[in-house]
Amino acid sequence: MTGYPVSMIALIFLALLGQGTAGPTPKPAGYCELEPSLVEEIQGYKTAVQKINEAVTNGKAKGKVYEELATFVDKFGFRMSGTKNLENAIDYMLNKSMDLGLDNVHGEPVTVPHWVRGHEEATLLKPRQANLKLLGLGGSVSTPKDGITAKVLVVQSFKELENRANEAKGKIVVFVEKWESYGKTVTYRVNAAVKTAEAGGVASLIRSITPFSISSPHTGWQAYKKGVKQIPTAAITVEDAEMLLRMSKRGEEIEINLKMEANMMDPVQSRNTVVEVTGHENKDEYVLVSGHLDSWDVGDGAMDDGGGAFISWYSIVLLKQLGLVPKRTVRAVLWTGEEEGLIGAAAYKNANPVNNLVLAMESDEGTFSPRGISFKGVPKAVCIMKEVMKLMTPMNATDFTLSNDIGSDVMVWANSPVPLAALANANEKYFWFHHSDGDRMTVENSKELDKCLALWASVSYVVANLSVRLPTV
Amino acid sequence: MTGYPVSMIALIFLALLGQGTAGPTPKPAGYCELEPSLVEEIQGYKTAVQKINEAVTNGKAKGKVYEELATFVDKFGFRMSGTKNLENAIDYMLNKSMDLGLDNVHGEPVTVPHWVRGHEEATLLKPRQANLKLLGLGGSVSTPKDGITAKVLVVQSFKELENRANEAKGKIVVFVEKWESYGKTVTYRVNAAVKTAEAGGVASLIRSITPFSISSPHTGWQAYKKGVKQIPTAAITVEDAEMLLRMSKRGEEIEINLKMEANMMDPVQSRNTVVEVTGHENKDEYVLVSGHLDSWDVGDGAMDDGGGAFISWYSIVLLKQLGLVPKRTVRAVLWTGEEEGLIGAAAYKNANPVNNLVLAMESDEGTFSPRGISFKGVPKAVCIMKEVMKLMTPMNATDFTLSNDIGSDVMVWANSPVPLAALANANEKYFWFHHSDGDRMTVENSKELDKCLALWASVSYVVANLSVRLPTV
Repeated sequence: MTGYPVSMIALIFLALLGQGTAGPTPKPAGYCELEPSLVEEIQGYKTAVQKINEAVTNGKAKGKVYEELATFVDKFGFRMSGTKNLENAIDYMLNKSMDLGLDNVHGEPVTVPHWVRGHEEATLLKPRQANLKLLGLGGSVSTPKDGITAKVLVVQSFKELENRANEAKGKIVVFVEKWESYGKTVTYRVNAAVKTAEAGGVASLIRSITPFSISSPHTGWQAYKKGVKQIPTAAITVEDAEMLLRMSKRGEEIEINLKMEANMMDPVQSRNTVVEVTGHENKDEYVLVSGHLDSWDVGDGAMDDGGGAFISWYSIVLLKQLGLVPKRTVRAVLWTGEEEGLIGAAAYKNANPVNNLVLAMESDEGTFSPRGISFKGVPKAVCIMKEVMKLMTPMNATDFTLSNDIGSDVMVWANSPVPLAALANANEKYFWFHHSDGDRMTVENSKELDKCLALWASVSYVVANLSVRLPTV
Repeated sequence: MTGYPVSMIALIFLALLGQGTAGPTPKPAGYCELEPSLVEEIQGYKTAVQKINEAVTNGKAKGKVYEELATFVDKFGFRMSGTKNLENAIDYMLNKSMDLGLDNVHGEPVTVPHWVRGHEEATLLKPRQANLKLLGLGGSVSTPKDGITAKVLVVQSFKELENRANEAKGKIVVFVEKWESYGKTVTYRVNAAVKTAEAGGVASLIRSITPFSISSPHTGWQAYKKGVKQIPTAAITVEDAEMLLRMSKRGEEIEINLKMEANMMDPVQSRNTVVEVTGHENKDEYVLVSGHLDSWDVGDGAMDDGGGAFISWYSIVLLKQLGLVPKRTVRAVLWTGEEEGLIGAAAYKNANPVNNLVLAMESDEGTFSPRGISFKGVPKAVCIMKEVMKLMTPMNATDFTLSNDIGSDVMVWANSPVPLAALANANEKYFWFHHSDGDRMTVENSKELDKCLALWASVSYVVANLSVRLPTV
């Protein structure tokens, strides 16, 4: 998951439902009226869903997606956009997909940024000497070779910086913002450098965007603004941020030396990885399942987004293995360049006709125990998807929530009629590991991954095989 | 808390109680018969306990122990035995104690080891290149300058190493032991080097001794054995240990380069820090409250054992401030050299007469929300302490459990008749941070520390002021 502040708007859709129907009494909010034959058809998929679930949780496919993900992650480690390692990982997935006889296996070209972190070091010089752990934020400029040595202004919000702007000139500004939620708090990562530069500061450091820390800094992309000086920007640990805040509140003079060798290289050619189970009736129409293959350059990208990419990819493997070929195509796309701002998804959207896209599904918020899906679509599509989710009782994952803020990559279709869906899962600890060295296979659990896969394959199969296309009007 | 495997024996005391009494029907296990006047006397301390609790949770002392601890920790950071920084921290505590007018303020000499970590680096060379985070274990020898490059044998237990001893020769042995409990699992930290060397291995790496990780290695002391070659030994993260285990199970050849500059220097003169509220009737007899001031060379030692040291020290400050001078003395000792094997406590025991020690209390397992105490003593003492703990209702911390395994430092008196007590608290996450960079002020909570302090000051005051000395026979 990138970290673009797309998650601002939340759960405000709804209650449009059941309004178009003519009748003497108003229908309750959320009421759905589907033709009985369609309801019957959907409930008829119980057998298929059971078959999928049985294969994944008790049968031949049990534990396989975890095994494939672990093998991949252990082989490549992190997969940063712009690196040869990411391209090797993409080749591996394409070759493996061809070996397994998946359909329409190919890469689609995407030009991605290539930012290189280089050596990073922050030293507290006053009131005492200490090393501060840090991670430069994506796209940051470097410092001079000997670093920037400057006094520190500690603030707890942009508002406070505004009020104390006259103290910021020539200083390193440290933001010790409060964690509220990722959607609300990530603005400090995205905008700290610009706000600091506008106030005359020379570098910005933020408290890592996480609710919990074991001295673990968290990176992520950030945004410079045209016309505003680009200054070095990095995240420090929660622990160090809180220490600096305490020192500041005591009136102690704080001085830091910040060294960053960050470098923005020329853009690099990368690829979205595409594999399918091609439909047998209307193969041009397709349900998209997706996650991103690229990762940050810390941890191993096992959670963000190895898990999401692999349940998407393995859904295709599984449907092929089980001989479940739907009417329409189910296509897995493993995005590239997600972390730098949905670069792969944007390229895909430009290169592929939108009218064939029946439903765009994404898993990029963890693959912990699944709960169901969140969904964006017109009322008639909502009614169908609600009925489909009733089938997910074997995985105990029948939750259905409406949201205008679905996933990250598929948000490139947010302003189109394309229905969107994201995996809902027990991801309360997701941001403990997100964009940090803690994003490793240890976070993933084989049984949970199996359940996510069973849900993912089932939903995509059923929607791809329905007698009606998911409505967009 | 050091990490010596003192915690093996657990909760096996009990049921000795209520046996010496003559009577027709046997008393139930745990039955206590105290003279009614003594019960009445103990319950008479309700007012004193309320006064202490009120001062700490609502009054002038509210938040003070957190503030003092944070000021100290932010000023000195970690305080490793053998360093000038630890001695500066001890001077600071002595000076502060004198400024506050505490009684009998002095340092008592202790010779402590001086082990210096130096630069450390572990590189996975096969099956792929990756940096492995590590922390050398205390007392480890160094590697040659270019490190040790060797193939790896991964085992999950000492038993497995025994069975595969013929594969260990010339290899780095990686222990991926299962976390069971600190007491059970720490044997891998303590004994990995010896077991590896005995099997012909050249270095040992262990999965850090923790139930949870965000890519955080955990250090701790380890023990070489006379006559067995001393080889370099370190802890890697849970994440890397699990990765190496997966690679090994796949049959992949693993090779690591391990570099450690560790150095054992000459021993150094340090001090236990002693302060008192001197008793007004029998000042030679005393209740000891204690924690250790030294720490590991990672994190800040805020939890291990800043919290324990500061509730002990502040108990004295508080009793003085409240004018609660007991009949006997309450003495706080802030141990030095705990992490290297209870060095300060052992020196104190040798230098001070044991017969004056009424009760030895220690807090070295966290200062989270208090629950009560664990205790070791004769049945009559148990009965008294149970009655005393009934007073701790204002802190909601009346738990009383018997154990032969109390704390760490005070275990130097384990084979003596001295009654021992340790703070019981909600420390379920203690080992998440223990001996790692995560041991920072962020772990500590002002309100929880206040409650621990109220308990600590109350128990020590009441026992020091009782009409009877806590029995030892």
